[in-house]
Amino acid sequence: MENKVDFFEQLRKLPTSCISDALDMLGINGGCELIRPLTQGMALVGPAFTLQYEQVKEGEKAPAGEFIDEVPAGSVVVIANGGRYCTVWGDLLTIAAKQKGIKGTVIDGCCRDATSIIQMNYPIFTKGTYMKSGKNRVKLVGKQIPVRIGNTIVHPGDVICADDSGVIVIPQEVLPEVVEKALAVEIMEQQIIRDLREGISMKDARERHNYNNFALLLNK
Amino acid sequence: MENKVDFFEQLRKLPTSCISDALDMLGINGGCELIRPLTQGMALVGPAFTLQYEQVKEGEKAPAGEFIDEVPAGSVVVIANGGRYCTVWGDLLTIAAKQKGIKGTVIDGCCRDATSIIQMNYPIFTKGTYMKSGKNRVKLVGKQIPVRIGNTIVHPGDVICADDSGVIVIPQEVLPEVVEKALAVEIMEQQIIRDLREGISMKDARERHNYNNFALLLNK
Amino acid sequence: MENKVDFFEQLRKLPTSCISDALDMLGINGGCELIRPLTQGMALVGPAFTLQYEQVKEGEKAPAGEFIDEVPAGSVVVIANGGRYCTVWGDLLTIAAKQKGIKGTVIDGCCRDATSIIQMNYPIFTKGTYMKSGKNRVKLVGKQIPVRIGNTIVHPGDVICADDSGVIVIPQEVLPEVVEKALAVEIMEQQIIRDLREGISMKDARERHNYNNFALLLNK
Repeated sequence: MENKVDFFEQLRKLPTSCISDALDMLGINGGCELIRPLTQGMALVGPAFTLQYEQVKEGEKAPAGEFIDEVPAGSVVVIANGGRYCTVWGDLLTIAAKQKGIKGTVIDGCCRDATSIIQMNYPIFTKGTYMKSGKNRVKLVGKQIPVRIGNTIVHPGDVICADDSGVIVIPQEVLPEVVEKALAVEIMEQQIIRDLREGISMKDARERHNYNNFALLLNK
Repeated sequence: MENKVDFFEQLRKLPTSCISDALDMLGINGGCELIRPLTQGMALVGPAFTLQYEQVKEGEKAPAGEFIDEVPAGSVVVIANGGRYCTVWGDLLTIAAKQKGIKGTVIDGCCRDATSIIQMNYPIFTKGTYMKSGKNRVKLVGKQIPVRIGNTIVHPGDVICADDSGVIVIPQEVLPEVVEKALAVEIMEQQIIRDLREGISMKDARERHNYNNFALLLNK
Repeated sequence: MENKVDFFEQLRKLPTSCISDALDMLGINGGCELIRPLTQGMALVGPAFTLQYEQVKEGEKAPAGEFIDEVPAGSVVVIANGGRYCTVWGDLLTIAAKQKGIKGTVIDGCCRDATSIIQMNYPIFTKGTYMKSGKNRVKLVGKQIPVRIGNTIVHPGDVICADDSGVIVIPQEVLPEVVEKALAVEIMEQQIIRDLREGISMKDARERHNYNNFALLLNK
């Protein structure tokens, strides 16, 4: 588990595109479509703490979900709300999350209190913003179970990485391989950038550094 | 009517989430789905001046809508254009609106001249931006009538509140009740925030301040 | 062709809304729906260098598209990827494009490496961001052929203009007419703005400067 923290350190320096390329090499599609940063410049890395919400029945009462006290420091809260247009995150949860050292929140759905959350600079990745509460509209039905975010299944402890391009999920069982491959991609791309800056053509730079066959090269 | 101005003052200090919770207590759903600020940080409060647009018939000519000279200072212009992808607001209307002391504009549709409107810092909430004029595409068919914005009906004089989370509509007949309840929600949430900052758990803080039964408490 | 450069200079000072009005006068609809700036404040003008992508067959391998070395300085790269949710542009292409003096990129689809591209301040207009590579998902099947971006066909050499309101395309055969008409619209609107600032009503200002019949006036 010590290693995991080192992996997180390395992932924090990598764009989601390199991580995605590493997942592609393993045939894993970890992207979460249509989930975007609440505002520009947000980024996060950490293990998922997952939550499943469901719609309530007509007239059923449902309080706000109780979970934040259980989330360990360093985690990323991952809320599966089926893209519903009511909110499962706001400023109270944000303040609690910051107090606890939680790294950020990913929602297949909406958050509210966008103005104050942006001021607090807490990383949220979500389908959008709205102000209607989820209270009495949806209910928390599962904690730390596999959930779907966009088109990807997230298991508790899977590693969530996000930046301005979006959110990607690394299954925890392939974490060491993915970090190794993503670092190799990043180094190869830095070499291409150096070549481009020296006036070498893209075609030549890609060939010199095996851009198109890099996966094969790594798997040798 | 003097009171109304005081209510507006109070609403300006409240996030749309508290206003939405107050409307929820009354069983009113005032949210306008998918209407977003033109850029981050925009907010407005004021009574609606409503406008209804319709598509023109094939080949029908239609000039730009004439309405801005009739809009009273302090109003919010609310334009129902059925989410159509042509524009009913641009920089000329923005300059006129600022001259007149109009508070902002909400559009179920698009606006253009986004670059200069953002520079002028005039609050616009809209489905998106585009550059194609509504001229000869849509026509103004009604002023100061009930209109639909997103999924909510707006009557002339209803109070529009908007921030980074989106746009919400307070029917004017419930304005005093909504302001009272929204302020109570805000005060209760500030108490929870104080508790959280002192290290009290979310569960305990919510219980101490009746977070989940606050509506019942207020209605006692 | 010298003239073209002068036209580009003039277009750079005009908002896309004036250009769109000029195209409307000629019955041409050049708008590209749902294509937005990667971040606020991006703008570009230049002739299109067009690229057509297609989905690969199940299991088909496809390398990254080779084209950037062929794009002339001053061009705008226009990539038709059918709005697909995989990326055909990232930071390597951005660095190459900046080295070469390319003006920007328009994508009916997604780009990745949003964080670093925003830092480089390179103008990209796109449907959204994602991190999954187009490699082995889509392939480049045509260069410098007519392509569709949103709802508009772009021919190689057509002039692309974009700002915060979106992307518009001027067919190159009408470039002189469009620039002339767009400048006339801009001057007329500046006159209305001056009137509004002097307290003249919108109705009067529009009438004085023939706002609603400006197309007829120009075509006299």
